[in-house]
Amino acid sequence: MLAEIITIGDEILIGQIVDTNSAWMAEKLNEAGIRIKQISSVSDNREHILAALAEAATRADIILITGGLGPTKDDITKNTLAEYFNVSMVINEAALENVTKIFKKYNRPLLEVNRKQAEVPANCEVILNKNGTAPGMWFNSNGKIYVSMPGVPFEMKYMVEEEVIPKLKEVLKLPVIIHKTILTAGEGESFLAEKIADIEDSLPANIKLAYLPKLGQVRLRLSADGEDEALLKTEVEKYAAQIIERVNYAVVAEEDIPIEKAILNYMAEKGLTLSVAESCTGGYISHLLTQHAGSSAVFLGGVVSYANELKESVLGVNNETLWQHGAVSEQTVKEMVAGALLNFKSDYAIAVTGIAGPDGGTEDKPVGTVWIAVANASKTVIKKFTFGNKRLQNIERSAIGAFFMLNTLLKDGGL
Amino acid sequence: MLAEIITIGDEILIGQIVDTNSAWMAEKLNEAGIRIKQISSVSDNREHILAALAEAATRADIILITGGLGPTKDDITKNTLAEYFNVSMVINEAALENVTKIFKKYNRPLLEVNRKQAEVPANCEVILNKNGTAPGMWFNSNGKIYVSMPGVPFEMKYMVEEEVIPKLKEVLKLPVIIHKTILTAGEGESFLAEKIADIEDSLPANIKLAYLPKLGQVRLRLSADGEDEALLKTEVEKYAAQIIERVNYAVVAEEDIPIEKAILNYMAEKGLTLSVAESCTGGYISHLLTQHAGSSAVFLGGVVSYANELKESVLGVNNETLWQHGAVSEQTVKEMVAGALLNFKSDYAIAVTGIAGPDGGTEDKPVGTVWIAVANASKTVIKKFTFGNKRLQNIERSAIGAFFMLNTLLKDGGL
Repeated sequence: MLAEIITIGDEILIGQIVDTNSAWMAEKLNEAGIRIKQISSVSDNREHILAALAEAATRADIILITGGLGPTKDDITKNTLAEYFNVSMVINEAALENVTKIFKKYNRPLLEVNRKQAEVPANCEVILNKNGTAPGMWFNSNGKIYVSMPGVPFEMKYMVEEEVIPKLKEVLKLPVIIHKTILTAGEGESFLAEKIADIEDSLPANIKLAYLPKLGQVRLRLSADGEDEALLKTEVEKYAAQIIERVNYAVVAEEDIPIEKAILNYMAEKGLTLSVAESCTGGYISHLLTQHAGSSAVFLGGVVSYANELKESVLGVNNETLWQHGAVSEQTVKEMVAGALLNFKSDYAIAVTGIAGPDGGTEDKPVGTVWIAVANASKTVIKKFTFGNKRLQNIERSAIGAFFMLNTLLKDGGL
Repeated sequence: MLAEIITIGDEILIGQIVDTNSAWMAEKLNEAGIRIKQISSVSDNREHILAALAEAATRADIILITGGLGPTKDDITKNTLAEYFNVSMVINEAALENVTKIFKKYNRPLLEVNRKQAEVPANCEVILNKNGTAPGMWFNSNGKIYVSMPGVPFEMKYMVEEEVIPKLKEVLKLPVIIHKTILTAGEGESFLAEKIADIEDSLPANIKLAYLPKLGQVRLRLSADGEDEALLKTEVEKYAAQIIERVNYAVVAEEDIPIEKAILNYMAEKGLTLSVAESCTGGYISHLLTQHAGSSAVFLGGVVSYANELKESVLGVNNETLWQHGAVSEQTVKEMVAGALLNFKSDYAIAVTGIAGPDGGTEDKPVGTVWIAVANASKTVIKKFTFGNKRLQNIERSAIGAFFMLNTLLKDGGL
């Protein structure tokens, strides 16, 4: 079963927002056994939307549309859908009730533009929007399914999870697609490819291997499609086991999770705690950890010691160390990680200090110089990295570097 | 001048990665006066890539292609381009030299798959890749320009900024497009639309107004196209000034910057400093601030006091307060913000404590309950928010709420 996603809105085409909706929808649909043939972003323009709908219908069975359902004048999706299906617009009573209820709840006056949100093409089935005023719409036309949803992520997500996917499962007989992802770090894509070339060559036609590189990590993804879920899983696991055995030293996780989540899972299982002392990463490591539910079982917290004063007052870094060696130095990062272990009373700690840039570099310590330390009570590992001159990339690479070092220390611990 | 972006790779279509490249490219091209007609993501599949190229060529003058240039077997973009243009593959000496140099620099053996990266379709002009091994490629064919680039963001970005856009400017006579964005917070999209309906109605045909809502904020974007840049700027500024005057109380910034950047700019100008005490936001507020170059002039740092022990030891929150009222309470957030001001010696401080979820809620304090405090030496403002049950959204909304409160306090300060 093939689907296409069409996102409508000039904001994507001028680059003011990143289209995160499509990736999210694609993931959910894949889990349900629906392959995405194409994702297209088109403008709030009548002819362009009509053309995109017609093109998608030649390639796919299901067309999911997001965006352009707001109350304002630049939102024309609904009227264009009515034109595409050659039907009139009608007020939907359930949708009107929903809009009225929401405005009552927030004590806001119901404006005419809001009332218009309850108008839908006559041939649609309304999907109620529990999180907003714009109704979703489900169309059956010429053997194809069209679903139009708001572009606001949490409104769309609720509809997809609670309404659209259950309904698609109900009305369609879906094939099975299985993915298995292995997260590696510390080795490049081509090196890994060479290492496992014979395994890749031995894959049957219905199993594909993809390499997904990202900032010092490579995810290896096996994808299989077929009819028999149990058989596909067994097949995929067999090849995954061969790959894992071959590149074992680089494997961080045997499932599709980020590196920090793999660490949280491992530490939670062992009952270990973690704290951090962040300078140049400025809270990013803490944020990566705390975005995951349940992180509080492992992560106690830490300090963002952007100013030197906080390195001294909160972490106990010696004023002399800072003066003699500077904030970006082996000595400082060593005292930072020791200070985090001591003051925050965690089993493990991470400390990072560096020059993220674009300013602040010197000849001795150019932009991109980063010192990272990981430690437990008995062992401290310190490394110097020399990244590039892009601030955000330096922050991200520092975080990934710190997690990879911590992962190695955890596994080295002989636990 | 119209362009299309085609991203190639199954990883986008199965939702494993979010396509951030396209938004970035769209923004850069728009700044250069090139409109993006459509963005399409297609799979690593020969027929599909060929069809996408042919379709794009019917709509646009410039076709930018990213992805599928890696050394591994799932990367087929280059060979498919050769097929599309009906040419053979040839080794490019400059590209080979670049690959060889990179492998020498990192002391890695040059494998046959890497050598293959220097092979390109015979009709292309090579764009050297300063940050990686896969060369970019520029094609002129039937009056259209095609550019193929790697999907790795920092490799692609360098090529676009340093090679592709300068070359496009050189060979094409480009129209002018002007954007002006006003960032508002605290009011909904439809409310703002009603407030400025008459201004919107008075816009000339070449100026469009778009509403871009996101988590408690709405960006109002005016876009104008034409020939005379100075005239367009004057026109757009005239309408922007009318809108700003009308909804003044909700305006956070008069340019397209995030709310935290508007705050950093304002505080830097006034010589003010900021620290934070984050519980449920877990470092996200610090990260938002520190992702901006120059933030260290304002932001001293802070604590991620995920565990109660850190609220006590680093911020000086009373053990009794935590016991009596709980970590998520008005009293605790008040002591947190006072502790941040005192211990981190900043002019302003933000404190946040709440239940991000999905677990940890109680009947009294359901998931989504968040207390936020902002303070300076003479004034403390505290608010309770009740968000939803989605963890990441609660973290993001808390951060935006905190910045909006701080923005109001800063402006209230009569400065």
